[in-house]
Amino acid sequence: MNCTFCEIVAGRAEASVVYDNDEVMAFMDIRPWTPGHLLVVPKRHATGLSDLDPADGAAVFTAGQRIATTLRHGSLRAHGVNLFLADGIAAGQEVFHVHLHVVPRTNGDGFGLRGMPTSPSRMALEQTAGVIRSSLT
Amino acid sequence: MNCTFCEIVAGRAEASVVYDNDEVMAFMDIRPWTPGHLLVVPKRHATGLSDLDPADGAAVFTAGQRIATTLRHGSLRAHGVNLFLADGIAAGQEVFHVHLHVVPRTNGDGFGLRGMPTSPSRMALEQTAGVIRSSLT
Repeated sequence: MNCTFCEIVAGRAEASVVYDNDEVMAFMDIRPWTPGHLLVVPKRHATGLSDLDPADGAAVFTAGQRIATTLRHGSLRAHGVNLFLADGIAAGQEVFHVHLHVVPRTNGDGFGLRGMPTSPSRMALEQTAGVIRSSLT
Repeated sequence: MNCTFCEIVAGRAEASVVYDNDEVMAFMDIRPWTPGHLLVVPKRHATGLSDLDPADGAAVFTAGQRIATTLRHGSLRAHGVNLFLADGIAAGQEVFHVHLHVVPRTNGDGFGLRGMPTSPSRMALEQTAGVIRSSLT
């Protein structure tokens, strides 16, 4: 099957696991953006959000939320936490098994987003919202 | 109560809404990082992940997943999508009502992460994992 994260879930590849239940597993990212950066993955393989069972998605978020709370209020005492998910190559996805990044933050750690927000008119926002709404229904 | 997102949920502040159910609402970010950037919020106020009802968190993710899928495969045809959540000032949180950013991506849009990954030893990863595991239990 040749999926690194499936190999980790199956116990055939090495990982530093922090959490494990019936639906998800969480383990340290081997290329951490900050100390303590970890990944939450569904045990059932899904390449992206489009083929992910919504129940597995909910379980991934629930575990990420619990771990984030622990990172802030447990012995790590992170000042903040980012959750991040990349769906598709254009979004920065590199491993094609859904994974939620949980990134502990400390003041001045240098991590963050690169982007320049714009200020569209309300009319432009309404037009975009209308396009998305019509695709959703 | 002076929470902008609670005002939007209550219909007392303007927003370009794309999705609305019993638990969550999604509307356009007024300072989009990319065209189509929107926010999913729980209707019940929570400042961050620590005080968010896990059921509301799951509902936020489920809506985000569904909208992300629509952005990629509906008429917007985004090349990818990022989900992003900032918990705490150190993580970049600016509005203290939990919100999940849903960010449509196109190749070369310039948006992304700012960070320099490191490559800790397995021993270092195991030590960090051990600290997090013991806080989780």
